[in-house]
Amino acid sequence: MDQLLAAVDLGSNSFRLSIGRVVQHEGNAQIYAVDRLKESVRLAAGLGPDNVLDDESIERAIMVLKRYGERLSGFPQHNVRAVATNTFRVARNVAQFLPRAEKALGFPIEVIAGHEEARLIFSGVANELPPSDNQRLVIDIGGGSTEVIIGKSYEPLRLSSLYMGCVSFTRQFFADGCVTAARMEQAQLAARREFESISKRYRKTGWQEAYGSSGTAKGLLAVLLDGGMAKKGITLDGMEQLKALLVKEGKVNVDSLPGLKASRAPVLAGGLAIMLAAFYELKIETMLPGEGALRVGVLYDLLGRDSKHDKRDETVVQFLKRYNADAHQAARVRQIALRLYQPLAVDETEKEDFTRILGWAADLHEIGMSIAHSDYHKHSAYILEHADMPGFSNDDQILLAWFALGHHTKLSKLGTQDATRAQWLALLCLRLAVLLSRRRENMPKLPIRVEADGKNVKILASKSWLATHALSEYSLRAEAGEWKKTDFELALLEV
Amino acid sequence: MDQLLAAVDLGSNSFRLSIGRVVQHEGNAQIYAVDRLKESVRLAAGLGPDNVLDDESIERAIMVLKRYGERLSGFPQHNVRAVATNTFRVARNVAQFLPRAEKALGFPIEVIAGHEEARLIFSGVANELPPSDNQRLVIDIGGGSTEVIIGKSYEPLRLSSLYMGCVSFTRQFFADGCVTAARMEQAQLAARREFESISKRYRKTGWQEAYGSSGTAKGLLAVLLDGGMAKKGITLDGMEQLKALLVKEGKVNVDSLPGLKASRAPVLAGGLAIMLAAFYELKIETMLPGEGALRVGVLYDLLGRDSKHDKRDETVVQFLKRYNADAHQAARVRQIALRLYQPLAVDETEKEDFTRILGWAADLHEIGMSIAHSDYHKHSAYILEHADMPGFSNDDQILLAWFALGHHTKLSKLGTQDATRAQWLALLCLRLAVLLSRRRENMPKLPIRVEADGKNVKILASKSWLATHALSEYSLRAEAGEWKKTDFELALLEV
Repeated sequence: MDQLLAAVDLGSNSFRLSIGRVVQHEGNAQIYAVDRLKESVRLAAGLGPDNVLDDESIERAIMVLKRYGERLSGFPQHNVRAVATNTFRVARNVAQFLPRAEKALGFPIEVIAGHEEARLIFSGVANELPPSDNQRLVIDIGGGSTEVIIGKSYEPLRLSSLYMGCVSFTRQFFADGCVTAARMEQAQLAARREFESISKRYRKTGWQEAYGSSGTAKGLLAVLLDGGMAKKGITLDGMEQLKALLVKEGKVNVDSLPGLKASRAPVLAGGLAIMLAAFYELKIETMLPGEGALRVGVLYDLLGRDSKHDKRDETVVQFLKRYNADAHQAARVRQIALRLYQPLAVDETEKEDFTRILGWAADLHEIGMSIAHSDYHKHSAYILEHADMPGFSNDDQILLAWFALGHHTKLSKLGTQDATRAQWLALLCLRLAVLLSRRRENMPKLPIRVEADGKNVKILASKSWLATHALSEYSLRAEAGEWKKTDFELALLEV
Repeated sequence: MDQLLAAVDLGSNSFRLSIGRVVQHEGNAQIYAVDRLKESVRLAAGLGPDNVLDDESIERAIMVLKRYGERLSGFPQHNVRAVATNTFRVARNVAQFLPRAEKALGFPIEVIAGHEEARLIFSGVANELPPSDNQRLVIDIGGGSTEVIIGKSYEPLRLSSLYMGCVSFTRQFFADGCVTAARMEQAQLAARREFESISKRYRKTGWQEAYGSSGTAKGLLAVLLDGGMAKKGITLDGMEQLKALLVKEGKVNVDSLPGLKASRAPVLAGGLAIMLAAFYELKIETMLPGEGALRVGVLYDLLGRDSKHDKRDETVVQFLKRYNADAHQAARVRQIALRLYQPLAVDETEKEDFTRILGWAADLHEIGMSIAHSDYHKHSAYILEHADMPGFSNDDQILLAWFALGHHTKLSKLGTQDATRAQWLALLCLRLAVLLSRRRENMPKLPIRVEADGKNVKILASKSWLATHALSEYSLRAEAGEWKKTDFELALLEV
C-alpha cells in the first residue's frame, strides 16, 4: 500500500489539512493529494492589542482541530506534521492554548519561524509547478505575515517574512468596515515601507515568473477575472480598478463583486493594499496563482525526513561552516555522546527523538565561540534559539539551546521545567563527551560507560585508566558532585 | 615638551600607575617610563562567596586611587587610561563602587574583558622585549584571572583568559594558611583542568620563548634564584623543589624563604599551583620574566589612539567581514548619520565622544543579520555586548549595543537610564540615517537636516523632495510620532 503523509497548516486566516499519497516514480518520490480540508478560522482577528488571543477564537480553533484529529486518527506520528505560523508566533498566551490544541489534534504542533515558513512555502509552490530553469518570485500574503521568496528549481535564493498580513492590515486600517481613499493610501504606504527594506536586493536577484500562493492572491484573481478587470493573472491596472471600486463603495464588504467568496470578503481590503505595495515596490507586472504553498512544502519536507534527506542535517552542516566551528571536535563529541547514550534504558520513542537532538546538539555546542570564548555556551544557546534554522521548529531550537547551555553551565543554573528523564540522561552523555574531549584528541577506546536505573546513574570507569588519568578522574568526580543539585544520584565506580 | 601618557591598572592583586614619555625616534614613537607606583591592594581577597566586594577592600582601593589621582591632576583626559580587570568583572556591587573610584582617581575607569586584557598584556610585554621573529608565549597569572597569549612581533596569534588567579586559588585551597601535599595536588589539578581546554591548540601553534609577566612569575623567580633552586628562569624542577619545601613547612607564609617579599608571600602557594599546571599542560621548559605587561600595553594603545592608528577602527573593519555585513550600507548610514550630527549644538567634549561611537554604531548596526533577519537589531546588540572587541572597553560595548538596539526598536522599549541629550541626538541621527537608507541606494543630496534647541528638535525637509517621496514622508512622520514617548519634542517641517 502507498504511504500516506499528512500536513496541518494552522495559519492566521485559515487552517488546512492535506493528506498526500507518496508515489515512487523513476527513483523520485512524488506526492499526490488524497484529501484536503480548509476552514476559515481567522485566528489573527482574535488577537487583542496586547497580543492575547481571545477565548472565542481559541474555541473556534479547537473545534476545527478536533475535526482534523478525527480524520487523522490512526496515522503514525512520524507521518504527520502540524505547523503553526504568525498568530502563534506572537500570541502571548500561546503556551496555555497549545497543549489543548495538540490534544484536540492528537499530534504535536510546531510553531515555526517566518523564515522557515517562507522556505516551506517555496518548496510547496515549486513542487506543484512544472520544472523550469527560470527564477521564480513567490509572494504569500497570509493573515498575519507575508512571505516573499525568490528561488530556482526547488532551491530558495532569497527568503523573507514580513510582519503584516491581510487580517492584521484590515483590522488596523479598516477596523470599522469603511474604505476611503486616504485609508487605502495609508495602508499601502505602511505595506510599502515593509517591502522597501528588501526590494533592492530582490530586484537585483531578479525573476522571470511571479506567483501568488495565498488565499489573498486567489481571491484577488477571482474578483479581477470575474469582474472583467483582468484577463489573465493579477496586474497593477486591474488592482487599481478594484481599489477605485472599493473606495467608491466605501466599505470592506462589497456585495456586488462577482467571484468573491463570503469568507474572503472581510479581509480583501487589507490584502489588496499589501499586494498593490508589492507590485509597486518590486515592480511586478503580472502574477499567476501558485498552488500548494505551506501545506505541500510540509508534505515534501516529511518525505525528505523519511527518505534520509533531512533538511535539518543540511542546516547543521551549514552552521558548522558559517560559525567557523571546530568540526573535528564536534564529530568527536557527537560520537562519544551517542555511544554513551545508545545503551541506556529509556523510553524507546523518546530515545529516538533525543538521539537525533543529542547528535545535533553535539555538532553545534561550540558555535557560540564565534562571538566570544568566554561564556561561549551562552552564546551558542542564543544563536540556536534565535537563528533561522531551515527544517527546525521553534521547539526544536529551544531544545537545542537547552543542550548547548547545559553542556557547560552549572546544573543549578539550568531551567529544569519539564525535562524528562530521557532528556536529562542525554544531557549527561553530552557533558561527559565534552569532558572526555577537552584535549581535542581522539580516544581510541572509550574508558567509561554509563548505566542508569531510574534516577540512579553509575559512571563505570576502567581502573587502570583512572590510575593514569588523574585529571579526568578529578573532572569526573566534579561532574558527579554537580548532579547532586538534581534529583539524580550519580556515582563514579571503578571497574 | 614631550607628551606624557598615563596608565592605571586596577588589578585583582595590585594597583599600578605608570607615566610614560613619548619619544619620536626615526618615525617610530617609543614610550619611556617617567614614574611608576605600585600598591598591593589584594582586592580579590575582599570578594565574598556571593561575589560582593566588602567595604574594607573598597576603602583600601579608594585610598590608593586618591593618591594616584593627586599624581595625575592636570593630565588631559585623553592622555590617561585606567583599566580594571577580573575583580571588577565579577564583583556584583561594582556599579555602586565604580563612581566613587572614578571620583577618587579623577578619570573614568574602564572595566575590560579578559580577552582585551590578554591583548594589552602581550602588547606591553612585546614592547619591552628586544624585537625578534620568534613566537613568544606569555603567561600572566593575576590575582583573579590568568592570561595566556602566543604572539609574534607585536601581534597576538592566540589569546585566552582563564578564570583563576593567585589570590582566588590561595583562598580556595589554602584558606586557613595550611599547605599539604593533597591540597597542592587538588589546586594543581583544578588549574590543569583550566589549561586543558587550550593546551592542544597552544602547543600546535608553538613558541620559541616563554615569558611570565606577573608578580607571581617575578616572585617565584626571585625565590627560586635566591634559594638556589634555579639558575636562570623558572623551571619545573625548581618549582617542584619549592612545592616540597612549602609542603614540608606546612604553611602558606614561610618565613625562611630568601627573596620572597612580604606582600607576595600570602599568595605564593596559589600562584605556584597555577604555574606548575601551566608547565605540565603546555610542556614549558624554562620561563623568563617579561616586563611591562598590562600597564605598558595600555600606554602603547593610548599612543595608537593618539596617532590615528586606533585599534578600535581595525576591530570594526574585522567585524564587518566576520559577520558578513553589507559594507556599502554601513558606509552609507555612517556618512548620513555623521552629516546630520555634526552641525548640532551639543556639549563639545560629548560631541567628540559620540561622533566616534555613532560612526562605529552605524558601521556595525546590521551585524546581527548574521544570526537572523527577524529582530536583527537585538542580535546586533547581543553580539556587540558579548563579543571580544579588541580596543573597546565593556562600557564602550554596552553603549554600542544601546545604539544597535535603539536604531530600530520602539523607543519605549529602550532602556533610557542615564543617556544624555548628546547621546539621544546621536541616536536620532542614526535612526534617520537608517530610515533614509532603507532602499540601500546612495543619495546624491541629503534632503533633510536636523536642528536642536534644548529638547526641541526640528527635522527640516525639502518641500519638493517630500512631495515626490510619499513613503519617506510617511516614515519621517512615524519617526516624529515615535519620539513623543521621550521628553524630546520632534517636528517635521517643510522648507
